[in-house]
Amino acid sequence: MSETTRGFPLSEFERRTAALQDGLARAGLGALLLTTEADVSYVTGFATRFWESPTRPWFLALPLAGEPVAVIPAIGAACMARSGVREIRTWPSPDLVDDGVGLLAQTLLEVVPAGGRIGLPMGPETHLRMPLADFERLRTAVAPLTFRDATAVVRRVREVKSAAEVAKIRAACRVADRAFVRLPEIAGPGVPLDVVFRGFQIACLDAGADRVAYLAGAAGPGGYADVISPATTEPLAPGDVLMLDTGVVRDGYFCDFDRNVAIGKPGDAVRRAHALLHAAVEAGLEALLPGMTAEALHRAMAGAIEARGGIAAPGRFGHGLGLQLTEWPSLMPGDGTVLREGMVLTLEPAVMLGPDRLMVAEENIVVQADGAELLSTRAPPELPVI
Amino acid sequence: MSETTRGFPLSEFERRTAALQDGLARAGLGALLLTTEADVSYVTGFATRFWESPTRPWFLALPLAGEPVAVIPAIGAACMARSGVREIRTWPSPDLVDDGVGLLAQTLLEVVPAGGRIGLPMGPETHLRMPLADFERLRTAVAPLTFRDATAVVRRVREVKSAAEVAKIRAACRVADRAFVRLPEIAGPGVPLDVVFRGFQIACLDAGADRVAYLAGAAGPGGYADVISPATTEPLAPGDVLMLDTGVVRDGYFCDFDRNVAIGKPGDAVRRAHALLHAAVEAGLEALLPGMTAEALHRAMAGAIEARGGIAAPGRFGHGLGLQLTEWPSLMPGDGTVLREGMVLTLEPAVMLGPDRLMVAEENIVVQADGAELLSTRAPPELPVI
Repeated sequence: MSETTRGFPLSEFERRTAALQDGLARAGLGALLLTTEADVSYVTGFATRFWESPTRPWFLALPLAGEPVAVIPAIGAACMARSGVREIRTWPSPDLVDDGVGLLAQTLLEVVPAGGRIGLPMGPETHLRMPLADFERLRTAVAPLTFRDATAVVRRVREVKSAAEVAKIRAACRVADRAFVRLPEIAGPGVPLDVVFRGFQIACLDAGADRVAYLAGAAGPGGYADVISPATTEPLAPGDVLMLDTGVVRDGYFCDFDRNVAIGKPGDAVRRAHALLHAAVEAGLEALLPGMTAEALHRAMAGAIEARGGIAAPGRFGHGLGLQLTEWPSLMPGDGTVLREGMVLTLEPAVMLGPDRLMVAEENIVVQADGAELLSTRAPPELPVI
Repeated sequence: MSETTRGFPLSEFERRTAALQDGLARAGLGALLLTTEADVSYVTGFATRFWESPTRPWFLALPLAGEPVAVIPAIGAACMARSGVREIRTWPSPDLVDDGVGLLAQTLLEVVPAGGRIGLPMGPETHLRMPLADFERLRTAVAPLTFRDATAVVRRVREVKSAAEVAKIRAACRVADRAFVRLPEIAGPGVPLDVVFRGFQIACLDAGADRVAYLAGAAGPGGYADVISPATTEPLAPGDVLMLDTGVVRDGYFCDFDRNVAIGKPGDAVRRAHALLHAAVEAGLEALLPGMTAEALHRAMAGAIEARGGIAAPGRFGHGLGLQLTEWPSLMPGDGTVLREGMVLTLEPAVMLGPDRLMVAEENIVVQADGAELLSTRAPPELPVI
């Protein structure tokens, strides 16, 4: 699939729908109710940046058999129809008296057998994108139908990406790859960090991003501490190590990886940390096989750091990736998720350089039958210098 | 306040906290629990793009008196401390057994008097950003404390912007203004719409946007239909009218306005529709005074269209604006919200050109004691031609 092919054939959505319906049946659920951008677009392909507005809720009801039913604000009907959904029910939202609850309740009562249970993602890494008071009204309106957690059903299907999905994540990775190549034009001694952030986002758009959904980064001498704060106006200084971590979106799918560069000649500790991170990713790439657990993959990376005398940072060393910047599972102790062919993951080891100094590396991969396949272009073993 | 001054003085957050606490007391609530980016940043200034990751929940507990307590993943402690919050409690998230629920319950039990009620936004335009199953656990863990809807408390305070907030929204508007000036360089006959979208986002970043959170648009001969779909690769053609609607973010605050331009000589219907929209905005600007209702402001705009023989589109004609692209109230029939000095609104009339063709105009304003003050640069009365 070329990078310019947009969307998916309808068969992709039919496959997803069937897989979710199979999961519903196994879990004894009579339907699935979805409310978030990622979940709704997974089933329908519904693509819009309108989710940025918190005003209107959007609902998708997936019956145990048959096609999904979109219950959405009228303003989205044309966009939803583009995505091939045939059953679209709309109301003029915002409706200050009943913002879709009545229509959704009626739909659920229609598609769920009496006494049935409606699956709803309620578990880790999910949220309900509708007012809680409206959910309480919905609960009353659909009684005696009840709601049950369906996170496991959705997760099991969404975690494994089709070849077409992998192609889209690869395309997003290529966009960020091309932007990172231009980093020496964007960053350098004396350039304020916020100017770097702005320039890098422009480079991502130039390289083909539809939008730059996420950009974080940090810079400091001998590593950095806080990796989630916005850029300050502080100029980069010789001796700093700069890290940029980006999630660009192309055709609905994210990449999520970072790059470290030294501003001027790096110190020994930073060069050593970079080498440790490179070794840790290498260990992860070598160890990965379908059937191993998320925590075993974490251990492979942490072990590579420790075997070389480094200190692995606490926290997870990667996660799932796809329609969201971060998805299940977490590569960390305690996550026994069995890795399956088709899962797209970030490998994201971090090493401590001091009590509050660290460095983090990140690559994107897909789990293939014979091991890891890189989707991002591998960071070099030696820390690049700008 | 210059456009380069970032953040707010601590006194701004003290004022917000005091206003919310006053609202809590009046509503008989013992604390406020906040979980979304806009609400948490409103009280604390906590600024990060990390909200893009759905993995971790973030909590802010505001007691009836005293300072807010942040209950957050450890990865955000340094960033939250930057914002001046002194009471920060963290846990290593993701925690697959207890992802902050225990710590949050303990905090709420500490700060809320026995038998008290915890306010939580549950109403229109809100959602709970945590797994629903975790909320059920929290409900059990804090019993006999109970949760009550606190949307009205939050809304009443957030709706009225301080002068410092207005300055930030004005700065965001100026960014988009500067980008729109460059539209003739970006769009033209034969340029595909997705290229226009990419170029416009770059122009916004060039003009000083921290990020381009929202961009929608449409193009068609004699108006457009679907205003929320992503850009296609369809080239602009002479006779099209192109609309771009953007929400850029600068220092945490949004603008939200659009521009229409004709690609080549516009037809009479489109020029007339543009004139109707201009007259409608003019009527809104002239009519607006503190004390009038949101629905009366809608009527002033719709009336101006109808008085000139046009057909006003159904739906709202504008909304609140600030930390979110869209906020309460809605300028529409049935919304009796009394407009107050300091509210920042979009004026967004739309006219029908056919059964499924419309045009929409949008400006951003702040309600001052003596009427509307424009924050966006007013669109010209004649439709510009590219």
